Amino acid sequence: MTDVDPMTRFPVPEEESLPEDLRERIDEETERAGFTPNVFLAYAYRPSHFRAFFGYYDALIEDTELTRREIEMIIVAVSGANDCYYCNVAHGALVRLYGDDPLLADQLVANYRNADVDERHRAMLDLAVKLTESQAEVEEADLARLEEHGFSRRAIWDVGSVAAFFNLSNRMAQLADMRPNEEFHTLGR
Amino acid sequence: MTDVDPMTRFPVPEEESLPEDLRERIDEETERAGFTPNVFLAYAYRPSHFRAFFGYYDALIEDTELTRREIEMIIVAVSGANDCYYCNVAHGALVRLYGDDPLLADQLVANYRNADVDERHRAMLDLAVKLTESQAEVEEADLARLEEHGFSRRAIWDVGSVAAFFNLSNRMAQLADMRPNEEFHTLGR
Amino acid sequence: MTDVDPMTRFPVPEEESLPEDLRERIDEETERAGFTPNVFLAYAYRPSHFRAFFGYYDALIEDTELTRREIEMIIVAVSGANDCYYCNVAHGALVRLYGDDPLLADQLVANYRNADVDERHRAMLDLAVKLTESQAEVEEADLARLEEHGFSRRAIWDVGSVAAFFNLSNRMAQLADMRPNEEFHTLGR
Amino acid sequence: MTDVDPMTRFPVPEEESLPEDLRERIDEETERAGFTPNVFLAYAYRPSHFRAFFGYYDALIEDTELTRREIEMIIVAVSGANDCYYCNVAHGALVRLYGDDPLLADQLVANYRNADVDERHRAMLDLAVKLTESQAEVEEADLARLEEHGFSRRAIWDVGSVAAFFNLSNRMAQLADMRPNEEFHTLGR
Amino acid sequence: MTDVDPMTRFPVPEEESLPEDLRERIDEETERAGFTPNVFLAYAYRPSHFRAFFGYYDALIEDTELTRREIEMIIVAVSGANDCYYCNVAHGALVRLYGDDPLLADQLVANYRNADVDERHRAMLDLAVKLTESQAEVEEADLARLEEHGFSRRAIWDVGSVAAFFNLSNRMAQLADMRPNEEFHTLGR
Amino acid sequence: MTDVDPMTRFPVPEEESLPEDLRERIDEETERAGFTPNVFLAYAYRPSHFRAFFGYYDALIEDTELTRREIEMIIVAVSGANDCYYCNVAHGALVRLYGDDPLLADQLVANYRNADVDERHRAMLDLAVKLTESQAEVEEADLARLEEHGFSRRAIWDVGSVAAFFNLSNRMAQLADMRPNEEFHTLGR
Repeated sequence: MTDVDPMTRFPVPEEESLPEDLRERIDEETERAGFTPNVFLAYAYRPSHFRAFFGYYDALIEDTELTRREIEMIIVAVSGANDCYYCNVAHGALVRLYGDDPLLADQLVANYRNADVDERHRAMLDLAVKLTESQAEVEEADLARLEEHGFSRRAIWDVGSVAAFFNLSNRMAQLADMRPNEEFHTLGR
Repeated sequence: MTDVDPMTRFPVPEEESLPEDLRERIDEETERAGFTPNVFLAYAYRPSHFRAFFGYYDALIEDTELTRREIEMIIVAVSGANDCYYCNVAHGALVRLYGDDPLLADQLVANYRNADVDERHRAMLDLAVKLTESQAEVEEADLARLEEHGFSRRAIWDVGSVAAFFNLSNRMAQLADMRPNEEFHTLGR
Repeated sequence: MTDVDPMTRFPVPEEESLPEDLRERIDEETERAGFTPNVFLAYAYRPSHFRAFFGYYDALIEDTELTRREIEMIIVAVSGANDCYYCNVAHGALVRLYGDDPLLADQLVANYRNADVDERHRAMLDLAVKLTESQAEVEEADLARLEEHGFSRRAIWDVGSVAAFFNLSNRMAQLADMRPNEEFHTLGR
Repeated sequence: MTDVDPMTRFPVPEEESLPEDLRERIDEETERAGFTPNVFLAYAYRPSHFRAFFGYYDALIEDTELTRREIEMIIVAVSGANDCYYCNVAHGALVRLYGDDPLLADQLVANYRNADVDERHRAMLDLAVKLTESQAEVEEADLARLEEHGFSRRAIWDVGSVAAFFNLSNRMAQLADMRPNEEFHTLGR
Repeated sequence: MTDVDPMTRFPVPEEESLPEDLRERIDEETERAGFTPNVFLAYAYRPSHFRAFFGYYDALIEDTELTRREIEMIIVAVSGANDCYYCNVAHGALVRLYGDDPLLADQLVANYRNADVDERHRAMLDLAVKLTESQAEVEEADLARLEEHGFSRRAIWDVGSVAAFFNLSNRMAQLADMRPNEEFHTLGR
Repeated sequence: MTDVDPMTRFPVPEEESLPEDLRERIDEETERAGFTPNVFLAYAYRPSHFRAFFGYYDALIEDTELTRREIEMIIVAVSGANDCYYCNVAHGALVRLYGDDPLLADQLVANYRNADVDERHRAMLDLAVKLTESQAEVEEADLARLEEHGFSRRAIWDVGSVAAFFNLSNRMAQLADMRPNEEFHTLGR
């Protein structure tokens, strides 16, 4: 594997220079994935923002009514709508892994309307993408529609929270020109 | 002052039922403002998300190259572009207070291009709003333009981070239909 | 109160130099408001256009099936959609005064979908904003929907006329960079 | 010629029932054109609005720094951008007559960027269409560009005023579904 | 008739220099129309593309479930939505000729929603324009709606194919700045 | 490999039932790729359209100033902008094969502005995507910019032609819900 620079518009710090809690997190992630996902090196540019960003991400993954596969589906549908190279590729890999499906990620990246998902997940993605592309038009009826598909209010908060967080994340990736590791392009295919 | 419900689409918890760290934060905010800003009661619906949200917000306010007035200007320009009632009004009050300017907030809510700001701040707001409205088109040249106006790369990361975070925040406010306290409408006028 | 220049992109005439009918109108408005609303000084740049503009405005206010509060609600919803600083602030004050409601104007400026209005007025604002943002898609069904909410055809013409007129007015305000008087920002709060 | 109904969504009054000043104006227009342009019968639905509308139109035509051909070019470029059937066709005929050019109107209806106009008129139409399609982005630089092409500030006000007025007019035509007389389709070809 | 250059951004070849099959086709078209439609001279710039372009066009016209009038209606609605001067005018003439209707083309150029068409053709044009303006949102429901109006699946393929082909054609006309012959502006009026 | 249906909204013909020239072409493609690309089975629904579609495609590939890698880059940038699942994946594979680059296709699918391409190819893709997303604004200056990067007028015609053709192709794929073969997702990675 060739190394890909984690981002091109801000300096990437040396790992040794980082605070211990960041190094520990980076080591954990590296062990889990077999390589260091570039987003951790990019956010390490600002340790306080690193902690805030991954703290929020952890909360969304850990305290949720959604399955991990649902979370990753939302992330890729939102990132596809936002044209985000980093998140399309890195979370596309996670959709393949958690979804045990080699095709779904490429479908969601292109156009979630053409993805092979059931009606319940289509409704979930409709809200996530509406909150991304025309958020000022989201109204009670949009939430009610998810309830008809069996989502609780708590779960709806979670759908919206994941979508909202990746509207932050996609923008930071674009600002910094974050680049996904080469490994993500093939993981789970 | 009439009480305004913090949000209409999710249940608002009783303060007494909240974990102690949330109650402490809410008490601090209440003491500082003279009333409890509704956003704290809204996020208390999900304590882990409350901690993550305000943890990120604190990092943006505390570890930054920007003045607080600049941060609030970015927030209101982004929120105006996103049509966010809660943030327009609550952070509009903060623009008036930190900026010592009774008119600037209403200008930024309407159209940051018509606001009375110098060229340096105009460039700062151009990036923040571009990252909001057409983020996929942000490129190196957009960052370079801020450097010409004296912003460091670190400061540019901060401009982008505040804009990105309020793209999260505005979406959560719209999802939940968060409503600003009556007090915010007149503070600092 | 600091004086705010009525506009920045065209010269503002001296009141004494104006034709008598303009001076009379300006005096009346000044007496009514307690200050001279800047829009009158801006349009005085071209007396024939002043007469035409306020003549149309008067017809819309005087020969109408709508209440004054409804008219001002339409104006602020349209001006918010058009990002018009002058009209947001000046007519926002009128919404507060005629509506006897300190919050509604800030809601309409941000996003009329989140405003505290009943279903009848929501339908009214839906037409006004559709005629503003995607006018080529207005069809008979849009008018029929207002009839279901009790608006007569005459009233629908009036809703559309107010919306259409402020699509003119917002554009002239943007062209000239018209600035609302400081007083409007606090009137009726 | 088959008669075309002046509009389909509001009742068209009988000419005999109209106030005398309206009848006089309609007679004058009928004499000038050889037929009664439908817009006069449509606005006659509300005599006070008829007076206001044509009063404004007259001011724009009579007190102006622009030639009549320039005014009609602006009208058709704006109406084309707004997809307005009535104004495309009726004012398209006037472009042919005042411009002594059988092709220009069809060019402006389609896409003013492909019209056979000199650079000075291209700049004029750029402002008119920007004020139509993205008015919130109009700034001093847009006006300055017209000055470079020899337009005075007064003339720039006029360019903007014609564009703004037809943003009103196009919306009323769409609301009412106004239909141009059959004659306009062939006049001046 | 003044000659209008077929296009301004690429050289137009001399007819004599063209391969024989192109000359034959051009002669046939000239005989049929009484003049040489400029699109044939424009595409002759690249003979292999000429054959491909008109080969596709011929297939759409000859192997179809649609009437020629329906095909031309789709073309002008799509070209109007795409602001294409060449196709508006040249195919507008064909709408007049095949539709035996002097007004329909100008309606379709402006706004197909205001055109005098029955509900069946309105549904047909809705799909054609949706496929033009927001193609990524076309779904099974859009096709099903045409079936309700009596279109077979084969006919729906044809509606979509004509719309898709003119999304190619309009773009080539814009790239090359193709100009319709003067004759087209008046044919069939 | 699981078989993926070539499209879901129109019937896919049995290969044996097809005219001989179609069967020959399909056999050739199958031999070349090692599997039958679904687009050939989809277009076989209408043999005359199959011939026209692939005839045009062949002309673009065979009579061109561009390299095959450049052609495939344009196709994927256009298809990414148009959110086309079929073309993103099938032509993404071709970008990997012809470009000998495992990452470029995923970059172009997401956002061609973030792709690792030189300035010359960036200019080429700028025109292709502008012709896709805002074609009515393409003007001589856009073509001149490619000349500055060494493209001849003939090459510019080719860039535009490939972009225009895939604006047809993407729309047909969306209409029919064409689905790429499973093989394309991994080819060349």
